Amino acid sequence: MAKEHVIVCEVGPRDGLQMAKTIMPTATKTRWIAAIAAAGVPEIEVGSFVPARLIPQMADTAEIVRRAVLLPRVVVVALAPNLRGAQDAYAAGAHRVSVPVSVSEGHSRANTNRSPMEQVAEVGRIVAWLGTQPRRVEVEGACSTSFGCSIDGAVPEANVVRVAEGLVAAGVDGIGLADTVGYGHPAQIRSVVRAVRAAIGDKLEGLHLHDTMGLGLANALAGLEEGIRNFDASLAGLGGCPFAPGASGNIVTEDLVFMLESMGFDTGIDIERLVAARAILAEGLPNEPVHGAVSRAGLPRTFRMAA
Amino acid sequence: MAKEHVIVCEVGPRDGLQMAKTIMPTATKTRWIAAIAAAGVPEIEVGSFVPARLIPQMADTAEIVRRAVLLPRVVVVALAPNLRGAQDAYAAGAHRVSVPVSVSEGHSRANTNRSPMEQVAEVGRIVAWLGTQPRRVEVEGACSTSFGCSIDGAVPEANVVRVAEGLVAAGVDGIGLADTVGYGHPAQIRSVVRAVRAAIGDKLEGLHLHDTMGLGLANALAGLEEGIRNFDASLAGLGGCPFAPGASGNIVTEDLVFMLESMGFDTGIDIERLVAARAILAEGLPNEPVHGAVSRAGLPRTFRMAA
Repeated sequence: MAKEHVIVCEVGPRDGLQMAKTIMPTATKTRWIAAIAAAGVPEIEVGSFVPARLIPQMADTAEIVRRAVLLPRVVVVALAPNLRGAQDAYAAGAHRVSVPVSVSEGHSRANTNRSPMEQVAEVGRIVAWLGTQPRRVEVEGACSTSFGCSIDGAVPEANVVRVAEGLVAAGVDGIGLADTVGYGHPAQIRSVVRAVRAAIGDKLEGLHLHDTMGLGLANALAGLEEGIRNFDASLAGLGGCPFAPGASGNIVTEDLVFMLESMGFDTGIDIERLVAARAILAEGLPNEPVHGAVSRAGLPRTFRMAA
Repeated sequence: MAKEHVIVCEVGPRDGLQMAKTIMPTATKTRWIAAIAAAGVPEIEVGSFVPARLIPQMADTAEIVRRAVLLPRVVVVALAPNLRGAQDAYAAGAHRVSVPVSVSEGHSRANTNRSPMEQVAEVGRIVAWLGTQPRRVEVEGACSTSFGCSIDGAVPEANVVRVAEGLVAAGVDGIGLADTVGYGHPAQIRSVVRAVRAAIGDKLEGLHLHDTMGLGLANALAGLEEGIRNFDASLAGLGGCPFAPGASGNIVTEDLVFMLESMGFDTGIDIERLVAARAILAEGLPNEPVHGAVSRAGLPRTFRMAA
C-alpha cells in the first residue's frame, strides 16, 4: 500500500533567522538551504522581503531567493508583508509568496500598521498584481495569531474564519493557520481547523506551529488527525518567541519528520541528512540555542522497522 | 459542565532519581515529595524497593515511604520488582505497589533475570501474599517495553496483550503500559492501547511515557484520545534513558498538566506550585539536566481564559 504523503516546509531561514541575535553570512545561508533541499525537504521558506532596517537578517533575501531557485525540485517560498515585498519576491524568482495576515487586531497593528481586513485587502492587491505578470507565482495567506495572541490574548474562532474567508475571496491559492506565539493546544487546533475547513474547504492547507509551551508536536498530531498534510517547521527549532525569552521557536523539523515517518507517512525526507544540516547552522550561528530530540538521542533501532 | 478528571502520577522520585548521577539526600527528597503533593499531585511513586547496591539512589525508600504516607490525600506508590520488595513496601506503608514486567524477553532477562511469564508468576505471588495481610494494598502491573525495546527492538502487540492478560489473571488491580525507552509513536500508542483494552477492558488504566524522541506529549495525546485518564510523568523531565545518552527522561509533569488543563481536563494540580517545586529538585541535584517548556516560557496569558 502506498504511504500517504505529508509536505514539510522548512521555515528556519525565514522564521528562525529573523529571531537570531547575529546575522548569518549569505554564503552560509545558501549552503544551509542547499543542504536542507538535498535532504529532500520539498518546500523552503528562504527569507522575507521586509525593510532591512527592521530585520537586518533578511537584507540578503533577494540574493538568497535567486540562488535557491537554482536548486532542483524544491519549492522556494518568500514571505512578503505587502505588494512592494511581493513584487520584489516575484523579481527574485520566488515560486510562492506567503503573506501574513494577523487575525488579532493588536498583532496586526503592531506588525503591519493595518487592521486584519486592511491587510486582507493588501493580499487582494498582491493577487491582482501577480495575475498580470507572465510568470505564475502562488500566493499563500498565512493567518498569524490564529490560536492566541501575546497582545490581545484569546483569539475567537469566528475571527480566524472571517480572515480565512476574506483571504479566499481575495484569491489566494491556499491558507495556512499559524500559532505564531505557541499558545495553542490540541483541542483548540482541532476545533479551529474544523471551523475554518467548514468555511473554506480544501483551501485550508497548512499549519505553522511554535513549540513555546512544549505542545508543538502534540498540536501537529491534532492537525494531522484533522487531515492537515502540510506543516511548517524549523531545523533545530531555530527561532524563539519575542514574548517568551528562552522559549523554543518553530517545531523542530527533524523531530516532526521522525514522528510522521514513524507513523507511516511519507515525507520524502532523509532524516540523517537533515540532522547533518544542523552542522552548517551551528557554524553560521554558533551562539544560537538549538533544540531537538532526534539529534540528541539518535534514531531508535525500531525506526523504519514497523510493518 | 463538570470537567473530566485526569490522574497524573509523579514518578520523578523513582524513575527520575534512579538515573541521577548523584544521590539526593533523604531530607531533600522528603521536602521535594511534600512540595509535589502540596501542588495537588494525587499520586506519587516515591521510590523502589531494590537492592541498594544496584540502585543506591533508592536506599532510603522505606524511610521515604514512611514519611510520604503522612502527607494528606496523596496516594503513595512504591515500585517492587519481586515479593521481597513488595513485602518491604507493605511494611513501610505504601498504598500501592507497582510491579514491572518487561514485555520483551531481553529487557526482562536484563532487569529481573526472569522471562516475562516468570515475572507474571512473581506478580501472582505478590498479589497472593498481599491478600493475606490485614491492610489493603493495590497492585499495579507495569508492562515495561510495551512500545519497543533497546535490546530486542520492535515489540509485537500480541506480546503486550499476552503479558497484560497474564497480569489480570494474576489478580492485579490495574495495568499500565510503559514506553520504557521512548521509542513509541502516536499511531502505535493508539493501536496498542486498543489491542490491550480489547483484551482486558477497564483493567488497562495508565500510560508511562518517556520523551526520548520528543514525542512524549504527542503520545500522551494519542493515549488521551483513546480514553486513557492516568499518566505517569516526572517533574522537570528528570531522568533519562541509559541507552540514549543525553536524552530526556519521562514526560515533563508540568508540561503534561499544562496540556491537560488547557484542553479542559481537570488534574487538580496547581501548575505554578508544581513549577516552584523544581527549585527543591535543583537544590538536591544541582548538576542534573532538567527539561520543560512551561518553566522556561511561563504560562501564556490565554491560559485558563478559554471558555
